Amino acid sequence: MTGRLTVIGLGPGDPHYLTAAAKSALFEATDLIGYHAYLARVPEWAGQTRHASDNRVEVDRARHALSLAADGRRVAVVSGGDPGVFAMAAAVFEALEAGPVAWRSLDISIEPGITAMLAAAARVGAPLGGDFCAISLSDNLKPWEVIVQRLDAALSVGFAVALYNPISKARPWQLDAALEIARARLPARTPVVLARAVGRPDERIEILPLSDMKGDMADMATIVIIGTSTTRLIDREGAPPFVYTPRSVEPPA
Amino acid sequence: MTGRLTVIGLGPGDPHYLTAAAKSALFEATDLIGYHAYLARVPEWAGQTRHASDNRVEVDRARHALSLAADGRRVAVVSGGDPGVFAMAAAVFEALEAGPVAWRSLDISIEPGITAMLAAAARVGAPLGGDFCAISLSDNLKPWEVIVQRLDAALSVGFAVALYNPISKARPWQLDAALEIARARLPARTPVVLARAVGRPDERIEILPLSDMKGDMADMATIVIIGTSTTRLIDREGAPPFVYTPRSVEPPA
Repeated sequence: MTGRLTVIGLGPGDPHYLTAAAKSALFEATDLIGYHAYLARVPEWAGQTRHASDNRVEVDRARHALSLAADGRRVAVVSGGDPGVFAMAAAVFEALEAGPVAWRSLDISIEPGITAMLAAAARVGAPLGGDFCAISLSDNLKPWEVIVQRLDAALSVGFAVALYNPISKARPWQLDAALEIARARLPARTPVVLARAVGRPDERIEILPLSDMKGDMADMATIVIIGTSTTRLIDREGAPPFVYTPRSVEPPA
Repeated sequence: MTGRLTVIGLGPGDPHYLTAAAKSALFEATDLIGYHAYLARVPEWAGQTRHASDNRVEVDRARHALSLAADGRRVAVVSGGDPGVFAMAAAVFEALEAGPVAWRSLDISIEPGITAMLAAAARVGAPLGGDFCAISLSDNLKPWEVIVQRLDAALSVGFAVALYNPISKARPWQLDAALEIARARLPARTPVVLARAVGRPDERIEILPLSDMKGDMADMATIVIIGTSTTRLIDREGAPPFVYTPRSVEPPA
């Protein structure tokens, strides 16, 4: 088969975050597939066909992309952030594994992008400067008790934690429950970063102590970074503080 | 003060991984500071001064960068991967916090980049498709027992784990010790990815079962990704398998 499928990370909203490799891959595609809000970020080129969908049904979208590639098309699946982090890459491989064996001879590749937690961290300083974890709070595909277990384990040993998919209409209480777990493990003053729509015109970034954070301060487009007990603020006049986690860790008491 | 300091993520070696924003920031600098191997990746522009150093003494380098910015220079601190992930950003904020208060009014920013684990993951599939952690195995700045605690906690609850700084001449046994911890928690067949120098001419990627992995297969330029008990291989004819971690997680037994 001569078809090709590339899953492309657009990074956060601003096209300045796109890598040169991702830009070339977008340009070379005959067909673009993705959630309509991501497709809307890609400049239109003549001769390209666009297949927009809503932001669920990832495996259907992946299957569609693979079947177009099997027909000889050069398909770009567009993904926000990095395709390998709570985005389209895993869905494509799920569809590939379950699909016709012939699909495995397609030219399939992933173009990495700037994932939300790294864009958010860069905006405020270096809150992920030590060891850290990324956890999706969505319990659509994994039991809530697994999420609780992972979050608590991570916080108990001093990881900074980036929470993806923190809240949605269908999942309104999970973020408050996660914050409760964090408050049981960390000092009240632990810095929390809420970063919404980084690099887009409606970007909004807040830095606040864990004790003041409430679930309804976030929405679907927000990434939440919970610092560690050593994460620090550097105050500045006339500007928000920097937030960073020092590289050094003291021996446990 | 009118000086400016930007910490810039070059991503993995290939310039195609550079974002447009990082490229502009490199171009606008009057002074480039960094480990000489990173500086060597940046095209030379007339009128820019380069300050190369070896890959230790991060805080000295950060202090030097801040003092040049305080003299009114536009300084770019170059960093491999993403500056916020086991790289120069945290060192800059450590130096900023400890330095003269006047430094806090400098224009300081971070340009994110593709960090090694995401570049490595993209090369092989989607091994970080579920929840995951990033841990530096270097015990230069944190006690080994903290590393052991974090690694064991992460593996015990099903995180995939990316190991940065897995081995060096001064730290020859830590990676084997980490692999022992992983073998106590995970099935022998769990896929492990070793990715060395991603995007550079000497790139080398290996996928092997946890039971076969030995510390001396890695070097300083390697990132090691340990999958989870659900991480899968998709075999292909005439090509290495894809490695991916499905998004779904079953309830604990």
